[in-house]
Amino acid sequence: MAKKAGHYTVVGTRQPRLDGALKASGRAEFTDDVVLPGMLRGKIVRSPIPSGKILNIDTSKAERLPGVRAVITYKDTNGLMSGSDKFLLCENMVHFFGDEVAAVAAVDEDTALEAAELIAVDYEPLPPLLSMEEAMAAQAPALHDFMTDNIADEVTMSFGDPDQAFAESDYIREDEFSVQPTHSAFSEHHIVLADFSLPDRLTVWTPIQSSAIIKSSMASNLGLTDSSVRIVNLHTGGAFCGRGGDKPHHYIAALLSRKAGRPVKIMCTADEEFLVYRGGGKYKFKLRTGVKKDGTLMVMDADLVHDCGAYMETQFILLRFVGSNMQALYKMNASRYLGKLIYTNNPPYFFHHGAGLVAMRFAIDSQLNLIAGELGIDPVDFRFKNAVEKGYITPAKFTYASCGLKECITKAARKAGWKKKYGKLPAYRGIGIGCGMLRSGGKGMYDHDNSSVFIKLEEAGKAALFTGLPDMGQGSHTTMAIIAAETLGIRIEDIKVVAGDTDVTPYDVGAISQRGTFTTGNATINAALDAKRQLAKTAAEKFGVKPAVIIFQDRKVYPKGSPEKAVSFEDIVYATLHSDEGRYVMGRGFYNPPSGQSDMSKYEANTALAYSFGAQIAEVEVDPETGMVKLLRMTVAHDVGRAINVLGVEGQLDGQVFSGMGQTLFEECVMEGGQVLNPSLLDYKLPRPFEVPEIERIIVETSDPYGPFGAKEVGQGPIQCTSQAIANAVSNAIGVPIKELPITPERVLKAIREKAG
Amino acid sequence: MAKKAGHYTVVGTRQPRLDGALKASGRAEFTDDVVLPGMLRGKIVRSPIPSGKILNIDTSKAERLPGVRAVITYKDTNGLMSGSDKFLLCENMVHFFGDEVAAVAAVDEDTALEAAELIAVDYEPLPPLLSMEEAMAAQAPALHDFMTDNIADEVTMSFGDPDQAFAESDYIREDEFSVQPTHSAFSEHHIVLADFSLPDRLTVWTPIQSSAIIKSSMASNLGLTDSSVRIVNLHTGGAFCGRGGDKPHHYIAALLSRKAGRPVKIMCTADEEFLVYRGGGKYKFKLRTGVKKDGTLMVMDADLVHDCGAYMETQFILLRFVGSNMQALYKMNASRYLGKLIYTNNPPYFFHHGAGLVAMRFAIDSQLNLIAGELGIDPVDFRFKNAVEKGYITPAKFTYASCGLKECITKAARKAGWKKKYGKLPAYRGIGIGCGMLRSGGKGMYDHDNSSVFIKLEEAGKAALFTGLPDMGQGSHTTMAIIAAETLGIRIEDIKVVAGDTDVTPYDVGAISQRGTFTTGNATINAALDAKRQLAKTAAEKFGVKPAVIIFQDRKVYPKGSPEKAVSFEDIVYATLHSDEGRYVMGRGFYNPPSGQSDMSKYEANTALAYSFGAQIAEVEVDPETGMVKLLRMTVAHDVGRAINVLGVEGQLDGQVFSGMGQTLFEECVMEGGQVLNPSLLDYKLPRPFEVPEIERIIVETSDPYGPFGAKEVGQGPIQCTSQAIANAVSNAIGVPIKELPITPERVLKAIREKAG
Repeated sequence: MAKKAGHYTVVGTRQPRLDGALKASGRAEFTDDVVLPGMLRGKIVRSPIPSGKILNIDTSKAERLPGVRAVITYKDTNGLMSGSDKFLLCENMVHFFGDEVAAVAAVDEDTALEAAELIAVDYEPLPPLLSMEEAMAAQAPALHDFMTDNIADEVTMSFGDPDQAFAESDYIREDEFSVQPTHSAFSEHHIVLADFSLPDRLTVWTPIQSSAIIKSSMASNLGLTDSSVRIVNLHTGGAFCGRGGDKPHHYIAALLSRKAGRPVKIMCTADEEFLVYRGGGKYKFKLRTGVKKDGTLMVMDADLVHDCGAYMETQFILLRFVGSNMQALYKMNASRYLGKLIYTNNPPYFFHHGAGLVAMRFAIDSQLNLIAGELGIDPVDFRFKNAVEKGYITPAKFTYASCGLKECITKAARKAGWKKKYGKLPAYRGIGIGCGMLRSGGKGMYDHDNSSVFIKLEEAGKAALFTGLPDMGQGSHTTMAIIAAETLGIRIEDIKVVAGDTDVTPYDVGAISQRGTFTTGNATINAALDAKRQLAKTAAEKFGVKPAVIIFQDRKVYPKGSPEKAVSFEDIVYATLHSDEGRYVMGRGFYNPPSGQSDMSKYEANTALAYSFGAQIAEVEVDPETGMVKLLRMTVAHDVGRAINVLGVEGQLDGQVFSGMGQTLFEECVMEGGQVLNPSLLDYKLPRPFEVPEIERIIVETSDPYGPFGAKEVGQGPIQCTSQAIANAVSNAIGVPIKELPITPERVLKAIREKAG
Repeated sequence: MAKKAGHYTVVGTRQPRLDGALKASGRAEFTDDVVLPGMLRGKIVRSPIPSGKILNIDTSKAERLPGVRAVITYKDTNGLMSGSDKFLLCENMVHFFGDEVAAVAAVDEDTALEAAELIAVDYEPLPPLLSMEEAMAAQAPALHDFMTDNIADEVTMSFGDPDQAFAESDYIREDEFSVQPTHSAFSEHHIVLADFSLPDRLTVWTPIQSSAIIKSSMASNLGLTDSSVRIVNLHTGGAFCGRGGDKPHHYIAALLSRKAGRPVKIMCTADEEFLVYRGGGKYKFKLRTGVKKDGTLMVMDADLVHDCGAYMETQFILLRFVGSNMQALYKMNASRYLGKLIYTNNPPYFFHHGAGLVAMRFAIDSQLNLIAGELGIDPVDFRFKNAVEKGYITPAKFTYASCGLKECITKAARKAGWKKKYGKLPAYRGIGIGCGMLRSGGKGMYDHDNSSVFIKLEEAGKAALFTGLPDMGQGSHTTMAIIAAETLGIRIEDIKVVAGDTDVTPYDVGAISQRGTFTTGNATINAALDAKRQLAKTAAEKFGVKPAVIIFQDRKVYPKGSPEKAVSFEDIVYATLHSDEGRYVMGRGFYNPPSGQSDMSKYEANTALAYSFGAQIAEVEVDPETGMVKLLRMTVAHDVGRAINVLGVEGQLDGQVFSGMGQTLFEECVMEGGQVLNPSLLDYKLPRPFEVPEIERIIVETSDPYGPFGAKEVGQGPIQCTSQAIANAVSNAIGVPIKELPITPERVLKAIREKAG
């Protein structure tokens, strides 16, 4: 990988997605397209109250309904889902509106629905705890039997000497910020088709970010070996953290299939979608930050309380991520953090786009803007001054082998015309900057934390790339095809991606924590190099040279320095496949980010080899009559290390501005009485296409030494900058700090009116 | 593979088939179970006359029928199918009753049928040539424009000096034998589902013996690259040569799909089944054989004429096989052969169970019985005396590295009580012997004539074996699992077979010419050894020894001589998968039978490395009132080299006795006016379960030096012995030579009456 930028043939070009034509023509196959002989439809019976006791479950009428093939209750489960605080199907208690109580499988959707309605459950309702304040109140009963209070988890982190650093600060500011529960509202509902074709053979079709993890979870929860479970992951309509792992409907379909002896499909309705997805819960941050007069950031103390809803499940990750990332964007001497997850009778929450980091970055970067204002320092200069750099090691020991943050800030500011605009815009126009960072290819999270890729060479010089990495729409398969084509010296159209079937693909930890391009990309390079070694042997024999001097370039193969001797890649593949001695070419590639020093007792670890950075500048216009915020222009500079597919990177930048704008200005799961009041794409207010601003894109390439061709993640990094850029711009426009998301017209109007007195 | 017989853990045991439970429970997925969104049904319009001109094709009414999505005629094709003498859809002429003329695709079966009936074709009938005699008559018109007569192909072979050998013979006998056209009548009809999801992406679901060959044929006929075609081969209900390659319905479905932009399924009806299958055509053998008085076989001269029907397609193979195999079972000094394929207006024929060899072996072995009778030599002794042996090289240069023919003859005779019965049975009871041989793993037939296997090791010490070899019911996947388990030192339940998808599996020439166990089996060993090498490295580091001394045995791994140090296979896999440096285990195995000396101009070549041999002894009872033959008992001795799966070998022996008995006594495609009069399983007379005789099985193991664990084929070898054993027994029972198959009650009765005068 010693080539310089610009010397690549495929990397750095603009490639349409491999799945583009299939999706555009409606021929891409999604899980709901799969129809199996004898397939049943499943329906889940859910709690109609946010909290209560189950007195009785009567399934007899449902079981007698013609067409019903299986009914299950807690008696058919193993109780708690492993590694979770949730019962798969409730036994004695329900804890949220929507909690899973029973399920049916029937010959068609209507019969399943009718049967679900025939299951009679008697409840004794209990007073629900519907806010973190109620749940944390001294007299509040513990929501779960196994707890004495409602603090589901608590993490304390401290780096450096925070007290000393506060003492040395010239200025200390304290603020509170809050972020609403949101939902990523992707286009394909949650769905699963489970088929226990034999007692020890379970196939599960479902859109998922990590087939490997759900496979392993389902195997252990259902008493099977890993190899007995096959996960098939077809085209997927979005994920954004929301398809990270196993959810109750996966097990319910499997148990129904086992009981009925038939395949069972469960497609979530719009209402269920909002329950199953577990969109980000409510966050409250209390921030106390100390700086020097010259703008040098000294120390930050953050308290986070997060409403995790009725069950914690895997939300403990969020608490830790926020604490270890809060000092990772700007240099500081010390920090302190206290994070708590609070049980309530709201539906369980999770997070989308980066495990609490979007919310945390909004809070911190908004407060820094206020501090810069107080100190009379330009927000851009303030950020540039404190920005982390290449070689920096954060208090939590993140180590930056490459870092383009300052370049992003400078280039974004120049492109956005910051100097000409900041403080010089007309009334109700504002400009704001937000920065962000995110790790690329987290390591050490799982037991078996790696990616493997196989590349099978076929007749006619084509290659099939086997990967367990799913493509949920982010274009990761196209990225892998580019990496393989570049390494093999062929073209992207020569690569076919084989994915989405755990029986077939090698292990890959999945599209989690921005691993795709970085981790699977490195494995792809290794697989292509291994395949090339096998081909080089054939070419070397042909040319009478050593394999090491064989060059593979744009479908040609020749000895270094003698391009005139070139033969086609196809011919070399053919000759290799036909060799008597046996050289059927299958390249094997493996990548496991090497583990470094870490001390998890102190939360100190370099949890990735590479980190991406970005800066975004938003320009907004506020209508003082209505409070409506219009995002006019967004300047996006992102350090992606290397743009493997320029078109793909641009798509990620645009998509995250769109999604970030939605979360900042429009979207919210509106809660009342433990219910989501707007559980459908009609009522949940996503931004519309005409609301997309003009987007200026600046791709910063720092060529990370560990990334494939220098590349880092771009899958969730850009959105880490968006909310605070917009919020700071709105604040700049109306002259009032923004401390709560979403920035609805009501709130803006209220702020304007309060300011006007 | 140096272990001795009996030292194996898995090889040589009795293993139920991997697909057994799925099939028994009805959960195995066949092609007709696949339902795709928007899938259409296709119907083929066929010629209603055996010969004629097409004056006009009017598709307008069909095209206007609501629900019709595509109609195709010759205009939508490239004309001739490549490598064939057949137009995919007829343009000016039809040559058989059933010739493909047009096709439609519609939203459902009924609409497709209605549309097919609305296609108006005007014909001018021509007088058909319905027998080889008519077709060969001097005044007969050439059936095809491009020919001057109706001899589709002609092959002459001569080995040694036949004239001299006849001159030196003491006794020369001449006979004529004829064998009827049959059909293998398997349980799954021909079916195809073709999906041109993009202009350069075609997926074809179809049961097939060689995905690799049909993939390559379809790619070249449709102007695609090999990598653009994906063949999916699910569970398959039988093949027996009948699913060897591409047939018109495959292309018709693909062209309909391309035109309609939707997936198209064509399921052949029972009538069509008999046309598409191309069951074995009529054979006529004229044999002239010279022997010494002592029974030494000297020379054989054979003329074969075979009715190939309206098109030759790939039947040229048959002519060559018969000629090169006729001297391969018994030693002789010389032979001469003239084979001809004759065009008629019957449906095109092919062959089942070994390309004409079953018919040839019936003819030769029946004549040898007559010769033994004339010489007063016991038929068993006669065969034993002339039987080929280990080390023998046939006139056509087949070289026998292992050969258990004499052992088979001796053991079968002993077990059958030959000496006590031959010539001593009551009236209308008879006993007869038949012998046969067949090559194992033909080589040099195709350009890319090999098998490759990959073995992926998974969590929990399980392995996924990737093979392109289809299992049409013969149990080949179970055999591969046994070979892999034995080599890896684990159990068959630890192996999962991944097959049936050319995107996924490595190249395998397929289940053709008895390649499965031999060729793919050797590749499987190589893949398992490669995987084991990767694991041995981990184990060697752990034990501080060299990798070469690591033993893998029954899920345990230990250094040679120290079984007390054993750790589990699972632990070694786990440690390997988790190594930082990257050892994701994928074993690659390749096998290409080494090419030997050959001179194809003289038809001299050792076309395989191994050959299987067998002897069968039939005992029959004939009802003199009805002519009915009852097969009482069959003693089957077969040299399989090594029985990898004893249960599987027994199943093959039983199945081939059953099928051979059917072809000998019952089955026939009854032809009249160019039509099959009995084209359904109701009318085509298969033997019924109660007609299965008592079967005595003798497995002879000669441990072939080239076979995997010494194994050779058993997939079509046993049936090479069956017809002649039964015919000779009937002849023995009624005292009349049997020269024509099937041995129907009518023929038997006629023979008895003629003999009685």
